[in-house]
Amino acid sequence: MRAGWREVVPGEALRGLHGAESAVVLTPDHCSEVSLVVRGADAAVTAAGVFADIAQGSGSDRPWFLSRQEPGARRRARRRSGALENRHDSRTDTRREAVMKDLKLTGTRPDHGRSVVEIAGVRVGEGLVVIAGPCSVENEEQTVRTAVAVKEAGAAMLRGGAFKPRTSPYAFQGLGLKGLKILEKARRETGLPIVTEVIDTRDVSWVGEYADVLQIGARNMQNFSLLREAGKSGRAVLLKRGMHSTLEEWLNCAEYILAEGNGQVLLCERGIRTFETYTRNTLDLSMIPAVHATSHLPILIDPSHGTGVLGMVEPMSLAAVAAGADGLEIEVHIDPQRAMSDKEQQLDPPAFARLMDRLRRLRAFMDGLDGDEGAGGKA
Amino acid sequence: MRAGWREVVPGEALRGLHGAESAVVLTPDHCSEVSLVVRGADAAVTAAGVFADIAQGSGSDRPWFLSRQEPGARRRARRRSGALENRHDSRTDTRREAVMKDLKLTGTRPDHGRSVVEIAGVRVGEGLVVIAGPCSVENEEQTVRTAVAVKEAGAAMLRGGAFKPRTSPYAFQGLGLKGLKILEKARRETGLPIVTEVIDTRDVSWVGEYADVLQIGARNMQNFSLLREAGKSGRAVLLKRGMHSTLEEWLNCAEYILAEGNGQVLLCERGIRTFETYTRNTLDLSMIPAVHATSHLPILIDPSHGTGVLGMVEPMSLAAVAAGADGLEIEVHIDPQRAMSDKEQQLDPPAFARLMDRLRRLRAFMDGLDGDEGAGGKA
Amino acid sequence: MRAGWREVVPGEALRGLHGAESAVVLTPDHCSEVSLVVRGADAAVTAAGVFADIAQGSGSDRPWFLSRQEPGARRRARRRSGALENRHDSRTDTRREAVMKDLKLTGTRPDHGRSVVEIAGVRVGEGLVVIAGPCSVENEEQTVRTAVAVKEAGAAMLRGGAFKPRTSPYAFQGLGLKGLKILEKARRETGLPIVTEVIDTRDVSWVGEYADVLQIGARNMQNFSLLREAGKSGRAVLLKRGMHSTLEEWLNCAEYILAEGNGQVLLCERGIRTFETYTRNTLDLSMIPAVHATSHLPILIDPSHGTGVLGMVEPMSLAAVAAGADGLEIEVHIDPQRAMSDKEQQLDPPAFARLMDRLRRLRAFMDGLDGDEGAGGKA
Amino acid sequence: MRAGWREVVPGEALRGLHGAESAVVLTPDHCSEVSLVVRGADAAVTAAGVFADIAQGSGSDRPWFLSRQEPGARRRARRRSGALENRHDSRTDTRREAVMKDLKLTGTRPDHGRSVVEIAGVRVGEGLVVIAGPCSVENEEQTVRTAVAVKEAGAAMLRGGAFKPRTSPYAFQGLGLKGLKILEKARRETGLPIVTEVIDTRDVSWVGEYADVLQIGARNMQNFSLLREAGKSGRAVLLKRGMHSTLEEWLNCAEYILAEGNGQVLLCERGIRTFETYTRNTLDLSMIPAVHATSHLPILIDPSHGTGVLGMVEPMSLAAVAAGADGLEIEVHIDPQRAMSDKEQQLDPPAFARLMDRLRRLRAFMDGLDGDEGAGGKA
Repeated sequence: MRAGWREVVPGEALRGLHGAESAVVLTPDHCSEVSLVVRGADAAVTAAGVFADIAQGSGSDRPWFLSRQEPGARRRARRRSGALENRHDSRTDTRREAVMKDLKLTGTRPDHGRSVVEIAGVRVGEGLVVIAGPCSVENEEQTVRTAVAVKEAGAAMLRGGAFKPRTSPYAFQGLGLKGLKILEKARRETGLPIVTEVIDTRDVSWVGEYADVLQIGARNMQNFSLLREAGKSGRAVLLKRGMHSTLEEWLNCAEYILAEGNGQVLLCERGIRTFETYTRNTLDLSMIPAVHATSHLPILIDPSHGTGVLGMVEPMSLAAVAAGADGLEIEVHIDPQRAMSDKEQQLDPPAFARLMDRLRRLRAFMDGLDGDEGAGGKA
Repeated sequence: MRAGWREVVPGEALRGLHGAESAVVLTPDHCSEVSLVVRGADAAVTAAGVFADIAQGSGSDRPWFLSRQEPGARRRARRRSGALENRHDSRTDTRREAVMKDLKLTGTRPDHGRSVVEIAGVRVGEGLVVIAGPCSVENEEQTVRTAVAVKEAGAAMLRGGAFKPRTSPYAFQGLGLKGLKILEKARRETGLPIVTEVIDTRDVSWVGEYADVLQIGARNMQNFSLLREAGKSGRAVLLKRGMHSTLEEWLNCAEYILAEGNGQVLLCERGIRTFETYTRNTLDLSMIPAVHATSHLPILIDPSHGTGVLGMVEPMSLAAVAAGADGLEIEVHIDPQRAMSDKEQQLDPPAFARLMDRLRRLRAFMDGLDGDEGAGGKA
Repeated sequence: MRAGWREVVPGEALRGLHGAESAVVLTPDHCSEVSLVVRGADAAVTAAGVFADIAQGSGSDRPWFLSRQEPGARRRARRRSGALENRHDSRTDTRREAVMKDLKLTGTRPDHGRSVVEIAGVRVGEGLVVIAGPCSVENEEQTVRTAVAVKEAGAAMLRGGAFKPRTSPYAFQGLGLKGLKILEKARRETGLPIVTEVIDTRDVSWVGEYADVLQIGARNMQNFSLLREAGKSGRAVLLKRGMHSTLEEWLNCAEYILAEGNGQVLLCERGIRTFETYTRNTLDLSMIPAVHATSHLPILIDPSHGTGVLGMVEPMSLAAVAAGADGLEIEVHIDPQRAMSDKEQQLDPPAFARLMDRLRRLRAFMDGLDGDEGAGGKA
Repeated sequence: MRAGWREVVPGEALRGLHGAESAVVLTPDHCSEVSLVVRGADAAVTAAGVFADIAQGSGSDRPWFLSRQEPGARRRARRRSGALENRHDSRTDTRREAVMKDLKLTGTRPDHGRSVVEIAGVRVGEGLVVIAGPCSVENEEQTVRTAVAVKEAGAAMLRGGAFKPRTSPYAFQGLGLKGLKILEKARRETGLPIVTEVIDTRDVSWVGEYADVLQIGARNMQNFSLLREAGKSGRAVLLKRGMHSTLEEWLNCAEYILAEGNGQVLLCERGIRTFETYTRNTLDLSMIPAVHATSHLPILIDPSHGTGVLGMVEPMSLAAVAAGADGLEIEVHIDPQRAMSDKEQQLDPPAFARLMDRLRRLRAFMDGLDGDEGAGGKA
């Protein structure tokens, strides 16, 4: 079963649910949801029974949605909150409530479970998922060679921009369709799913033919028409935080996508705009625990745009993993000196391979740190 | 020999220098500096010779200063820059130069060495140093019991405010001298050096009698008179970044202290003010690599004020260690529910002990990550 | 002749130019422009001669554009720069150059003239133009009654949102087409041109059938596809400044519209996002002289969103006029207590009438202040 | 009687109160206040009677304070709130309450009166008061010549820095005592009261011997020790808003001064720090109505630091007057090209004279605008 949300109809057997899992069913108006705890061998039967029950009396012709709760994610989340879970922090509670007040689908689950978004076999929300690739698709050789290199180093998905939102109308605007075809070729060669940005409501459906994940950039975070269209596309969506957007606004933008019945949303922090000019943006890693406290969606970090400084990509990536990020999006170029955009913040393949090795080891260490305690608090 | 800067006179044998070390000698006007590379068995003799040479012709009666460069720190710094060291990033170079243009003593060394500041036996700039304790000193029992608890958990220094800068004149302003006497008692009981804030130029010298480290808070970062006075005090100074201060301004404030001949300065990032209201401040962890790229001073992180959210202290502390922070300053209270200030962001002793355990293990892992590669790139 | 840009072809007589005027002709690639100073009785003949000359050798089939420079605007601009015009301010010059470096059409003219944008007989860039009306079109009665009231008080255009960009997908999103039809009715009743927001590239052409001015909101300022589409629409465009956008970014967004051959652009400052929470946004009135120094386009101020505080609309409107704003956009509702959005920042008709009276008198006073000096520096 | 607060003792005749005035008496603990409305010929007698009454039973030996409410200011304030006064704006009310919650002396009066601060015969809070002079006192000729020029143009006070807070310790730090003596000389020559910055608690009392107004700069706004010392000095204090300080924090800093019994406080907005780099700071003119809504203290605007751009000083000054500012602080230098600091934002005397002329005329116009309506709404 695909993660995220799935359409169901009253009376349908809730296929794909296993024992000891939980699931959530949303009513057609998205205004209420019911948690199902599925136990025993005949889980699907039980769940279907509960579902039939709650569906009673619904005359709506809009679809119901079902989301499976990952037991692994749930357990990890519980472990992470750790020793602090019994501390009452009323100010934080107030702020959490304020952030979540309009969220019906994006906020935390009653069981505190975290969603896993599955994209062409890659499960985001479990291990550490790294999306890597060039800022812009420039030509076939540059893109395919970069794709092969990042795949070899362990990246799980390929990023690359075919439509580039640029401050000036006279700057390179991307290759468009030609770029998408190059990305398709790179996917054929490497098997990596493609993450690419979409900037126009009219392009969503046909770009979705090429992309596995539609990226919505920081400048378009509150382009609500684009969010709705992406929601309808059925494609997974990577939603960057606007450079001037609060957590509350960001999660409400995700809500626009989920409200269209598309639960496959990845959040990505990419730095906010402050008075500091040494870094290109101020990378706000506190969004990792903030999203974990207010939403069930996976949270990724983009240290490339988040700092704009080559030498900061590695330390900020390590920091993100230590803080519990579900993934990273990193700019890598086969020959950064010749890149047509973001020249100075793209890693070359050897630096990326070195970074991947460290990230993998750090993540394994962090999982052990959680695991030791989970196994009996020997730590 | 005490780390940081030390007064020397022309002709003096430069004691405490060992073979294969380097040192820096500053001229009396702080306007130029000379790096000494000290080699061979008779290191001190060699160095003294060079020193006598450069001192030639100086008629000033203001003291010269000597700073020993830590070979360990230097090696680590080199390793960390790693695979990226040969990449030319001209935009970053321009920004680094802009930040460092007025810095004579605070900027990076020619040999890229990082300074170790030694405070009553605690060496900041080598391993991970954690400063912990209550926001405010409230009474003897609260302070001493907290001190015993944080010492037991592995903290290296005790923090506690006797003078509290508060937004309203009617809020609790701290116990003043009475608070300092309580801190002195806590030091006697635990042996932990004391870090406490000073907010008035007139208090610097007598507060310095009680404190091992004078803390200058974010609101006073550009209180230049206070910086000078702290510089003259001879005490180590922990300088917080202003909530609206750029890296350049922050390092220039450190320069005010170093220009008084006091090189024992610890920088501490504590969150900046942005539009985001979910967190109390936006903790800017990118300052860790930024300070490492522009200064030789140790950089600490304060996740308590930096987030203002109890549940974020742990993930942000882990992130800071992964990004290479030299230390942390964390608020811990024996009974947070009854704290007179910052009630909701102070850890209790069990949570702190758990956090310390994880931080220690993460730091050891990070050192291994560096070490493996240093030993031959087996990673 | 309509103000702004007009298509011309090589060899065409440049109709509508009068003696002692100046005009600017843009080459088809928008990459260069030629200033024409038109003198004498046979102005059009002269200009046409020059134009034929510069058109020589152009093989492009893309259109040329002509912009008439308003002599009145030019004279006023010269007077305003007044006593300061001979002062050399190199830092400001550097910043102006940085802002304008990518601007071909939006930056200042060689003759420092300011453009007048003419919309259904309303000339923006000469006197003070006030756009007023409700935040949202809610129903016919509310809209038409408000339109009648603001017309009576002296407003020159009617604003009203049919598509509302809202933080939450569950908030009132506007009446859409139904709202546009209501606005059309209000125009029939009052003769006021309509300003209404467009939020989707697909809607631009048909919304343009109803609107005289397409408004692009702060959240969509960098929705580059929408900017291009608005540029192609041939309709005047009111471009709000993004809440975290620099002057440079804002003017480059205007450039996207002008680069499509549409010079009828009004800039509108509506407050930026800062740490201050007393006001909804921080209204940056310094953008009035800043735009005057870096662009020939008219600059309007929106004190309603810019402050979000009812009692601040009047003082900030007066301040904007004193600083030289070309216009204001103010939210007025026939019954603010019952408004469906922005309830607390909309004026009622009596308050708006009182404000309009004061604004008119202040503007007349300000023109006199300029005029006295222009007439011989008696001031 | 001096404006602001004055010490009184129970039983004392409240001298200086006239018929139809109101006054406020504060209890010794500053925790409560009583409004006195003084009517009839024997005003002082009546007031003393009420005072004796409220003083009944107070055993404290801390002084009581009396503040006379200016009837003129009160009437103007009422007129300005004008047509809006009956509109209920609950969100604004909530924010006003939040800002004022800890203010006992700085918040608005029950009778909405605005205080007049009298400094050596200059009454701030009635007409428009312009403070002008050089950024730094550089030498006697520069200072005295500038003083003579600004006096001639109509400035009411002379500003000039003898202690300069500078980002770098190696930048020009001001002439100190020598600078103060030059300012004293300038006062003798022109009669203008002196406004000069103090940056060290230890300097307050002796700098107060030279200065009529102690200026506390943006970087020291939350230097609470300095605020207290300035409060104790008995001198008027000009308190600049910190570049990252909220209205609430700013007013609480004023409260630190008033709580020491010194009500002679002038607030001065000088621009806040945002992401915009075209201007040096973002001048927040909305603080004029914001302060009028939350405090009885006069509010001044500093357009020189607020913009950092020469050509913006005039339009922003005019805007400030139109918004109702009680005064301006403007940098003027006899020869700006040779200034040792802030070279590019200081006006020369002819530009300042021209600006003063326009400001005076605008203020007269604005007063007429208010007056016409007050006289019967003929406007």
